[in-house]
Amino acid sequence: MTSPTILLRPLSSYTFTTKSAQPEEDPSVSARLQRLQNQYEDFGMRRTVESVLLVHEHGHPHVLMIQIASAFFKLPGDYLRPGEDELSGLSSRLDSRLQPTPEEPQSYGPSGEGRDQPDDQWEIGDCLATWWRPGFETYMYPYVPAHITKPKECKKLFLVQMPPGKVLAVPKNMKLLAVPLFELYDNSNRYGPQLSAIPHLLSRYNFIYSDV
Amino acid sequence: MTSPTILLRPLSSYTFTTKSAQPEEDPSVSARLQRLQNQYEDFGMRRTVESVLLVHEHGHPHVLMIQIASAFFKLPGDYLRPGEDELSGLSSRLDSRLQPTPEEPQSYGPSGEGRDQPDDQWEIGDCLATWWRPGFETYMYPYVPAHITKPKECKKLFLVQMPPGKVLAVPKNMKLLAVPLFELYDNSNRYGPQLSAIPHLLSRYNFIYSDV
Ligand SMILES: [Zn+2]
Ligand SMILES: [Zn+2]
Ligand SMILES: [Zn+2]
Ligand SMILES: [Zn+2]
Repeated sequence: MTSPTILLRPLSSYTFTTKSAQPEEDPSVSARLQRLQNQYEDFGMRRTVESVLLVHEHGHPHVLMIQIASAFFKLPGDYLRPGEDELSGLSSRLDSRLQPTPEEPQSYGPSGEGRDQPDDQWEIGDCLATWWRPGFETYMYPYVPAHITKPKECKKLFLVQMPPGKVLAVPKNMKLLAVPLFELYDNSNRYGPQLSAIPHLLSRYNFIYSDV
Repeated sequence: MTSPTILLRPLSSYTFTTKSAQPEEDPSVSARLQRLQNQYEDFGMRRTVESVLLVHEHGHPHVLMIQIASAFFKLPGDYLRPGEDELSGLSSRLDSRLQPTPEEPQSYGPSGEGRDQPDDQWEIGDCLATWWRPGFETYMYPYVPAHITKPKECKKLFLVQMPPGKVLAVPKNMKLLAVPLFELYDNSNRYGPQLSAIPHLLSRYNFIYSDV
């Protein structure tokens, strides 16, 4: 009944490298919705998992976000295969997006420090939010809207932490940005309704700021 | 790591009666901020606790809110005395606001069903959110704003449930309304930033709709 505690590490605790570009799966919003509809017909509701990766900088919590083409922001994560487990699925999506890769040795970092880091170092914690997509449209809601019995997508956000010293390899067509909570708050114009709500979702936690 | 579950009871499971008016402590916003400042000088940061009381109607979660003077909405709760415990303090604020009282026998309900209900039937659950007031002003944030070391108020919202059949006695100058999540969502114009964020805070829960 007391507030749960989260240990935040400084951004400088992590090393950021690059790896090959990972093109977007769908070239447009309409292509994305068309794929959703095709997959819904074959497999039913899409299940998506995303991660809220937290660090701190000068005493403020920051969320790590991917920026694509200097334009839109998203959380690391993706949709699951039919029947795939949420947690192991999120871990493998984070690996493919951000883990260094042997095919690109420089992705291990200047002194190769990422070489000995196992996959699967993502410490997946609480589910922070669930978003529901009632139709084959862009709108999602943080509840199942009235009289909707067959939502088309369910997206869950999980709190994810990383051990100190982890190397993150960012695809060349993306940036990984640390965005402070005060930048996200009340800023759905820039970040959209899902990302701008993250400060609300985190407000019940008690943060501890680690030096390393 | 799975989503926590909440059992929602129907609004009709509860009985609503009335009791004497409870005038607002402060006649204006400026009087309220002045009282906050006076108390801050004597006792330090104010601690406020409020409750998110949930019911369901026709399959949707609803939040019980107090409406004063057909104008503004608030959650049941109030500020604590210096040193007072959060949970027992919230329970006693809920009793004084909504518990039937022997001085007004009709507040026990048409057949007196509230007479045998003990005080303290509030089942206080998770902390859902924390809001911080950095100055003696109306603005609050769901985090401690940058470079604020002495916040003036800390407000916590707790999930609260009630046993079936409970009688709630509402002061005559107030209404107790069941507001559905879809009415609150994205509606800070009407409900303000704190109440309109409640759907976000609840989205991680899995709701079960009880018949009684
Ligand atoms: Zn920063
Ligand atoms: Zn700063
Ligand atoms: Zn209703
Ligand atoms: Zn309905």
